[in-house]
Amino acid sequence: MREQRFFQQASRLLHACPHLTKLLVVVTASGGGLIAYSEGKPLVTRAAYADAGNEERKKKVVVLGTGWAGTSFLKSLKDPNYEIQVVSPRNYFAFTPLLPSVTCGSVEARSVVEPIRNIVKKKKYDAEFREAECYKIDTQNKKVICKPGQANSLGKSEEFTVDYDYLVIAMGARSNTFNTPGVVEHAHFLKEVEDAQRIRRSVIDCFERANLPSISEEERKRILHFVIVGGGPTGVEFAAELHDFVNKDLTRLYPALKKYVRITLLEAGDHILNMFDKRITEFAEEKFQRDGINLKTGSMVVKVSDKEIFTKARGAASPEATPYGMVVWSTGIGTRPVIMDFMKQIGQINRRVLATDEWLRVEGCDGVYALGDCATINQRRVMEDIDDIFGKADKNKGGHLSAADFNEVINDICERYPQVEIYLKRKQLKNFIQLLKTSAEDDELDIEKFKKALSEVDSQMKNLPATAQVAAQQGAYLADCFNRMEICERDPEGPMRFRGSGRHRFHPFRYKHLGQFAPLGGEQTAAQLPGDWVSIGYSTQWLWYSVYVSKLVSWRTRMLVIGDWSRRFIFGRDSSRI
Amino acid sequence: MREQRFFQQASRLLHACPHLTKLLVVVTASGGGLIAYSEGKPLVTRAAYADAGNEERKKKVVVLGTGWAGTSFLKSLKDPNYEIQVVSPRNYFAFTPLLPSVTCGSVEARSVVEPIRNIVKKKKYDAEFREAECYKIDTQNKKVICKPGQANSLGKSEEFTVDYDYLVIAMGARSNTFNTPGVVEHAHFLKEVEDAQRIRRSVIDCFERANLPSISEEERKRILHFVIVGGGPTGVEFAAELHDFVNKDLTRLYPALKKYVRITLLEAGDHILNMFDKRITEFAEEKFQRDGINLKTGSMVVKVSDKEIFTKARGAASPEATPYGMVVWSTGIGTRPVIMDFMKQIGQINRRVLATDEWLRVEGCDGVYALGDCATINQRRVMEDIDDIFGKADKNKGGHLSAADFNEVINDICERYPQVEIYLKRKQLKNFIQLLKTSAEDDELDIEKFKKALSEVDSQMKNLPATAQVAAQQGAYLADCFNRMEICERDPEGPMRFRGSGRHRFHPFRYKHLGQFAPLGGEQTAAQLPGDWVSIGYSTQWLWYSVYVSKLVSWRTRMLVIGDWSRRFIFGRDSSRI
Repeated sequence: MREQRFFQQASRLLHACPHLTKLLVVVTASGGGLIAYSEGKPLVTRAAYADAGNEERKKKVVVLGTGWAGTSFLKSLKDPNYEIQVVSPRNYFAFTPLLPSVTCGSVEARSVVEPIRNIVKKKKYDAEFREAECYKIDTQNKKVICKPGQANSLGKSEEFTVDYDYLVIAMGARSNTFNTPGVVEHAHFLKEVEDAQRIRRSVIDCFERANLPSISEEERKRILHFVIVGGGPTGVEFAAELHDFVNKDLTRLYPALKKYVRITLLEAGDHILNMFDKRITEFAEEKFQRDGINLKTGSMVVKVSDKEIFTKARGAASPEATPYGMVVWSTGIGTRPVIMDFMKQIGQINRRVLATDEWLRVEGCDGVYALGDCATINQRRVMEDIDDIFGKADKNKGGHLSAADFNEVINDICERYPQVEIYLKRKQLKNFIQLLKTSAEDDELDIEKFKKALSEVDSQMKNLPATAQVAAQQGAYLADCFNRMEICERDPEGPMRFRGSGRHRFHPFRYKHLGQFAPLGGEQTAAQLPGDWVSIGYSTQWLWYSVYVSKLVSWRTRMLVIGDWSRRFIFGRDSSRI
Repeated sequence: MREQRFFQQASRLLHACPHLTKLLVVVTASGGGLIAYSEGKPLVTRAAYADAGNEERKKKVVVLGTGWAGTSFLKSLKDPNYEIQVVSPRNYFAFTPLLPSVTCGSVEARSVVEPIRNIVKKKKYDAEFREAECYKIDTQNKKVICKPGQANSLGKSEEFTVDYDYLVIAMGARSNTFNTPGVVEHAHFLKEVEDAQRIRRSVIDCFERANLPSISEEERKRILHFVIVGGGPTGVEFAAELHDFVNKDLTRLYPALKKYVRITLLEAGDHILNMFDKRITEFAEEKFQRDGINLKTGSMVVKVSDKEIFTKARGAASPEATPYGMVVWSTGIGTRPVIMDFMKQIGQINRRVLATDEWLRVEGCDGVYALGDCATINQRRVMEDIDDIFGKADKNKGGHLSAADFNEVINDICERYPQVEIYLKRKQLKNFIQLLKTSAEDDELDIEKFKKALSEVDSQMKNLPATAQVAAQQGAYLADCFNRMEICERDPEGPMRFRGSGRHRFHPFRYKHLGQFAPLGGEQTAAQLPGDWVSIGYSTQWLWYSVYVSKLVSWRTRMLVIGDWSRRFIFGRDSSRI
């Protein structure tokens, strides 16, 4: 609360002197952020690999992808006894949360990327990067088959194979068009740096085209109608950025065009930002209303043609055509073809993404890990293992359990099946014993009563969201496991194996939600922080600046992004079409 | 000399403490440059247009092109009584001397461009910019016909026409391939911002491709062979930049590839930088030798295929094929097709560029001006007008002239025929009278002696070089003429008309050479300054930094370029392939 009051007071002060804002934000962003934000890093035992023998052959680890998951893995890996090969079509890591800022030039594309070689160069392990795309995974022979990603003008692209002992699949996802006709041909996506650059050029293109004397009034209106499909954080942030760009920068340069510009945000659901708190959604919707951003909820896109987008309101008989100048499609993620093929190959049929266990190992494969947007954790159900759990607790095989019997296995149960804890919290129960008491008045439980007590626990299982935060934590977690592979082999640290014997080598992956931002334009941001703390407004924008700068991957990118922000405050965004 | 000593001492001091260099250069660049460099600006009479009546229709001026000439014209134009229409396929001005730096990321593309609307916005005259390409000039009906330059996805591109009272053609030139087969298909040019961006991506592409395991040794050598064709300032600077990029940045990230990299500079003449002083050429050639840049002079390129470049040494019987990974073509300029068509149309056949008179008016057209690389001044010969000159001087028509007779016309002759002064300087004659004395012992001259005295004067006529400096001075000169159009109509300021009567309205254009730089890499630059002052080395690099920053078009670009340089000093150049 004190922090919030500080921000509010600072906000008031700065609104009185707008010039002060410009200076202060830079200072806040560069200095404050690093202090204000501290991340829950997994513990790493540094001594772990000190005694590893060099006489053994180094294990080959192949990392596919240089997104959040892959890069986080590479950054956190410390054991020098691995030989790393990174294969990715992009030789850089991109700080994707700033992509909406890149679309309008608030931040330059080059400020949000860092060459992956710069990142691994400082590490103790040997690493090679190959700019290529993996298009086939051969788990039988433990190799991946790749084809080069460079321009064909350099020569024929010959595929090559890379052997692995461990494979880390972190290839992310592609944009999901839901097979809507015309989207791939006519809409812009916003997943890669190149997408953001193309959008930027396209916005300027629309303005320059609309400014020609040969364009009719109607055509001018069409060209300056910008449509965003998808009311998630990316779509909303892009709409806000575009609104700022148009109103703060472009209308100064193209004053005659201001009256023609229209921004429409289409969302199939009832509300935008539906993963956020209701307060944030309401604030965002009201702000967009005030800003003149046309918000159409409950509106499905059924087709996109070269000049018109066809939407169908819920309950409407036939679709409605709206002329547009540019469409940005940001409705969620789909599976990459190579992952789709791989799933078929390993028998994971009819799934959206790769299934892994709680240790991020791909089910049905040996030595293959998958993390980030291309995978999801298949949490083991309590009810699947209920007999085994009962058996482990019932040491004397009496068929009845007392509270005392549980004391030994409670922690293991809660660690192995995190849904139990979520269920307890939701039911406002203090601990596991209380849960069991709901089914049995006395202290003794038989298997039926035990089953009944736990019957609803599995309903609390939820897939993790496909965010950068999850991917980064998974990468760091997996690197940590790799760092301590030998130690934990000898001395397992994980929970008891209920089906088998002994303990699991590692603790299972546990996601720790650190909050989420939704920038809304006009120097206002909404944030949902852990503990249901919601913060909206100008002060949150500074928190956003600070957090994002602190999360950037290198000092170079930090300096560049701060430079870009300062430049925008002073000179505005550039509108050169390059 | 004192200035030179200062630079040398500072250089020594800074080499002792390399860290100091990084700091100081930024300070020098940002502050010093503005003081160190002062440009010879043409005088402008500000009161000139104060009394211009508003009742008249404003004259329509159409400016084609936003390069050095066009932008300089727009920046210097002050009279609010014009209605300006700017037509160009690029909505920005690019500071082209920094393009070689953009190719390797020493400076970002966006740091060297400024939207043309930002430039004209601050002006008093009304200006409209149209992003389109003029493809036909109709001098009969005083209009230009243009087609839009935006992506076709926005709709059909309909041509439009723009009327003019005055037309300013400043469309520049294109790269000249001398019709060498394969150049357009396989080589990179270095004229536009997009070219520089493409080259940057291509260099990284070559390194990533060479780094793949499926590439043979021989192929790796080929891919990392960078060939630059043309030993002019652009080619030399690019070779130097590339050498620095490879040796300072890329070999840190791709250490295994260092031994394969080869840079070859091909020049058809005997020496590189042949427009510079011999000392500079020698220094550059020696430096390139030391740096391991392969210099091949006297070598003509006859063909470029997808993987090989065919060169023919002087006197060799057959061409030699050399495998390459990337070719950059920088051999000079050629004529744009639209200018070619226009020349045919107005009867300027068999010319390389548009011919104008000394007031930049296109010969044979009314109200059409041409400047920059698309035009050249057709200086009137003295011998063409020799009878008229004699006639004007011989007021009493006696057929004989005394020195006294000349006093009245000497200044006019020297202004109208600048070659006279160049000739005097070269022959080390003090003045015109001395020149005449070389033909006549006594003080009296008849027409024959007069002709004899001046017979060699015209040999001194030389076309101006196709540089940014010439274009910028022409733009400023023409704007100055436009600013004082009415005043000079009433009160002509130019030299006497020898063929007609009265005086010319304006002084003819006179180019003032301010010196030229040739950056040679490794923080060393050569400069040839007026008065044959040659300066080479580290100190000159700082002069280069200062001058270039001071010449940048806006404070925004100045800040950005300084920021880019600082970033490079601290973090090196970025190698992300975006």
